[in-house]
Amino acid sequence: MNGSTATLLISCPDQQGLVAKFANFIYDNGGNIIHADQHTDFEAGLFLTRIEWQLNGFKLSRDMIPSAFASVAKPLQAVWEIHFSDTIPRLALFVTKQDHCLLDLLWRWQAKEIRADIPLIISNHEKLKAIAEQFNIDFYYLPITKETKNQQEARQLEILRQHRINLVILAKYMQILTPEFINHFAHIINIHHSFLPAFAGAKPYHRAHERGVKIIGATAHYVTADLDEGPIIEQDVVKVSHRDTIPDLIRKGKDLERVVLARAVRLHVQNRVLVYGNRTVVFA
Amino acid sequence: MNGSTATLLISCPDQQGLVAKFANFIYDNGGNIIHADQHTDFEAGLFLTRIEWQLNGFKLSRDMIPSAFASVAKPLQAVWEIHFSDTIPRLALFVTKQDHCLLDLLWRWQAKEIRADIPLIISNHEKLKAIAEQFNIDFYYLPITKETKNQQEARQLEILRQHRINLVILAKYMQILTPEFINHFAHIINIHHSFLPAFAGAKPYHRAHERGVKIIGATAHYVTADLDEGPIIEQDVVKVSHRDTIPDLIRKGKDLERVVLARAVRLHVQNRVLVYGNRTVVFA
Amino acid sequence: MNGSTATLLISCPDQQGLVAKFANFIYDNGGNIIHADQHTDFEAGLFLTRIEWQLNGFKLSRDMIPSAFASVAKPLQAVWEIHFSDTIPRLALFVTKQDHCLLDLLWRWQAKEIRADIPLIISNHEKLKAIAEQFNIDFYYLPITKETKNQQEARQLEILRQHRINLVILAKYMQILTPEFINHFAHIINIHHSFLPAFAGAKPYHRAHERGVKIIGATAHYVTADLDEGPIIEQDVVKVSHRDTIPDLIRKGKDLERVVLARAVRLHVQNRVLVYGNRTVVFA
Amino acid sequence: MNGSTATLLISCPDQQGLVAKFANFIYDNGGNIIHADQHTDFEAGLFLTRIEWQLNGFKLSRDMIPSAFASVAKPLQAVWEIHFSDTIPRLALFVTKQDHCLLDLLWRWQAKEIRADIPLIISNHEKLKAIAEQFNIDFYYLPITKETKNQQEARQLEILRQHRINLVILAKYMQILTPEFINHFAHIINIHHSFLPAFAGAKPYHRAHERGVKIIGATAHYVTADLDEGPIIEQDVVKVSHRDTIPDLIRKGKDLERVVLARAVRLHVQNRVLVYGNRTVVFA
Repeated sequence: MNGSTATLLISCPDQQGLVAKFANFIYDNGGNIIHADQHTDFEAGLFLTRIEWQLNGFKLSRDMIPSAFASVAKPLQAVWEIHFSDTIPRLALFVTKQDHCLLDLLWRWQAKEIRADIPLIISNHEKLKAIAEQFNIDFYYLPITKETKNQQEARQLEILRQHRINLVILAKYMQILTPEFINHFAHIINIHHSFLPAFAGAKPYHRAHERGVKIIGATAHYVTADLDEGPIIEQDVVKVSHRDTIPDLIRKGKDLERVVLARAVRLHVQNRVLVYGNRTVVFA
Repeated sequence: MNGSTATLLISCPDQQGLVAKFANFIYDNGGNIIHADQHTDFEAGLFLTRIEWQLNGFKLSRDMIPSAFASVAKPLQAVWEIHFSDTIPRLALFVTKQDHCLLDLLWRWQAKEIRADIPLIISNHEKLKAIAEQFNIDFYYLPITKETKNQQEARQLEILRQHRINLVILAKYMQILTPEFINHFAHIINIHHSFLPAFAGAKPYHRAHERGVKIIGATAHYVTADLDEGPIIEQDVVKVSHRDTIPDLIRKGKDLERVVLARAVRLHVQNRVLVYGNRTVVFA
Repeated sequence: MNGSTATLLISCPDQQGLVAKFANFIYDNGGNIIHADQHTDFEAGLFLTRIEWQLNGFKLSRDMIPSAFASVAKPLQAVWEIHFSDTIPRLALFVTKQDHCLLDLLWRWQAKEIRADIPLIISNHEKLKAIAEQFNIDFYYLPITKETKNQQEARQLEILRQHRINLVILAKYMQILTPEFINHFAHIINIHHSFLPAFAGAKPYHRAHERGVKIIGATAHYVTADLDEGPIIEQDVVKVSHRDTIPDLIRKGKDLERVVLARAVRLHVQNRVLVYGNRTVVFA
Repeated sequence: MNGSTATLLISCPDQQGLVAKFANFIYDNGGNIIHADQHTDFEAGLFLTRIEWQLNGFKLSRDMIPSAFASVAKPLQAVWEIHFSDTIPRLALFVTKQDHCLLDLLWRWQAKEIRADIPLIISNHEKLKAIAEQFNIDFYYLPITKETKNQQEARQLEILRQHRINLVILAKYMQILTPEFINHFAHIINIHHSFLPAFAGAKPYHRAHERGVKIIGATAHYVTADLDEGPIIEQDVVKVSHRDTIPDLIRKGKDLERVVLARAVRLHVQNRVLVYGNRTVVFA
């Protein structure tokens, strides 16, 4: 299973023969499929698939694959993207003051659980600068006020461009990105706490405690203009009880957030997440 | 540990010596405590406790206990209730058409997991009558329209009174009880599905599916005038994925609902739930 | 997605083009794949797949499919089985005295969660006869002593044959089947408790309690001659604490057992379980 | 709830009046109980309790408490220990080459989730020295061979003594401590993977993979002479599937190990764990 691989993520209107057509494209060109998974959303009439195959021995060169596959995909009205396993994605981490998600991601990155380059951290506070230095990562301190927000976001976008960033991770970045930012940079993953029932507004842990909830959760999702309403990648929960004080809830929530965010980032980086409509298929 | 027990559920303003005072009341009267648990809510300044002791050898007769304990409780401004383990609570089950919660409760009741009498089932549909007959339980068919709702609720309350019912369980009863009903009969447990994020309105499973949630949940709570917002007794969740169709979500939701409701009823019947404010302490 | 479907479960030595070859077999004969999932076990060098397609419009008649597919499978040294969704599997339930797994299976069967015929229950005790009658299922009382075991197993096998049973479910059947029985009838699912750490020998709940375990589990598996060591289909656990008495552990264990067994049976009946070596792939 | 607290952990033969007697000791001396929890093990005939109270306003000075309480405890044949919240426990971390548990503990220590001093790390390899330096903790490199084991353990015990260590944490220390070591130093917490079923011997993840387990677990326990059989403090599991390769199992196992070990250490440091026989009561 060594050597580089290519991965196709495809969604297209459901019709007969799709599995055969996509598999034949790989096989006829001498590729060896090492992972194929598909899903049909019958309500939406959509076929969604992930196919990964070894490049070693594949007859098409890397730059010929897109146009060759396009001729298969076009008649099927398929929407698709292709990724090569040796093209390492470049991540930027956005943080504010809390370090739990940042540290967890960096630790997993160092342990090679997340295969990516992380050239930079952007923060609206200086507090976490020492961590960036310790991991030898550029740290951009871009404080934000109501007045400077647009200007600083423009600066952020410029930095992302300069560093050829593929994915932004909001690792407890306590600023709401403007729709303009999101329009310019589409690949953003966010993490936030989730409760049963949901608590809108400020101090959710205080309100969850007042209500005596027995479970708290965290949700990792892609960011869309509709705040906290983007496609969900991963969720998890932990049981709590009346014995848990507000600090306990916050501590347990942090533990959840770091695990759920890390799982979501890993799934994205492995090209296992296919977004359609406002939802995802996770080919785990 | 055989023989009957008494259980006190007490909440009172936090102050020094409470554990000692309550324990001395039992000990000075020759009682043997078999379970004692307490919790201090420092935000609310409240002390909450559950004490269970053996009646065998206790110097106070059962009818003397309340007045004797009142003289301890009054100076402490304690709110309290007392229960005897051989006073079997009487439950009424309200259902509509779905049988999963009803069957699960009856099965556990028969297996003696829920120690209670269940003399009656009330339904606004006739569909589940055969189950009532099979378990030899009275079945009251009280169909409800907008016009007859108040009248039928009055009839329900009368039936509850006649049967000396202590607890109503809404085991998928698809009618909203009026505030008048709730004012007249305070001990009601309800079960409903819960989602991360929450989905208000109709067809929640369809909306959860559209949104691609990765977790679905269920919540058992006491009913208050504020619909679905009463004190939570028990919650649980199950993981789902894009492979789960809407029927799968509904099936998994039913499995959750029956387990969560059964746990909540069992906890209530064992006098392990203490309500204060809009929340509970569950002395599990 | 209406109409009957065919499902192939295939395992064969990994090689290039397998996905394409199997998909082409369906496509070339006009079939519409509604579910395809595959897995490669790189350690074992095995490719394993489940393919389900609609029979409506398929050019091969049902009885022609096996020989037609054999000509694809043979050169690939594939081992395979085919199932048709309208061939309802026939289950026999083996029980002793405990009713929790039996009742849960029958309830789900009635609720159409498990699509199967259940013509008979076999027991070495008479205790659960009334349940069989209530569900209108034949009940065979075959008491077993050391002396009569072989003879009664022969009788059991005869009954299974007469009723054309496809799957035996040991729903808390407290007898060890002889290797002879297992040799004659290969499709058997069993449920048993599991602990961390494992406790061999008698009274496992007592020993788990003595040891103060914090988690108890249940495992559903196929039965092989090597007792309780067959391929695992499904497992789950529940948290426990020092507050759980032995009866509590047993009660929680029963709740687990019924859920885990029901999930395993459902997966099997949907032809989602592929056994190879001493393990399974569950195409859930 | 500010100010220092004292905590008693008591176990004694069950008898009438225990709650009252212990509570009176606190109350009569002007103490304010902020946490009290008890458990009766009816099989063992033992009463076990944890009582925590505020020292502020308590009439007995800290050094008078033990002898004063002894006069209560002795007639009851109680075994007890007392802890003061401002006596910070001193931990030594034993590691080999894996850093996941070490980093997680140090991160939580820095985040003040674990209230302790960690003056030293001992390792039989040099690999993790840089982490010790980064956190400004003494690192003792004590390589171990069969020949030097006794001598190096003697050196370890000497170091523990010099640093007045209260608790040793085996954070993936891949050496088996001799019974002599355990006899000399009794407070040791270990973490290890757990499987359903259990796999003895080498390469457990490989064997779990071969067997196709659906769940993997981790157990934190006190170390006794009987290897991996000491009293369990905390356990947890995670679901796995056939899609998980051996490296996936190992990665998920590491995630579990660090969480389970951290929870166990936190519970111990908060004096919430009472050991009796070969089991624990965790007053969580």
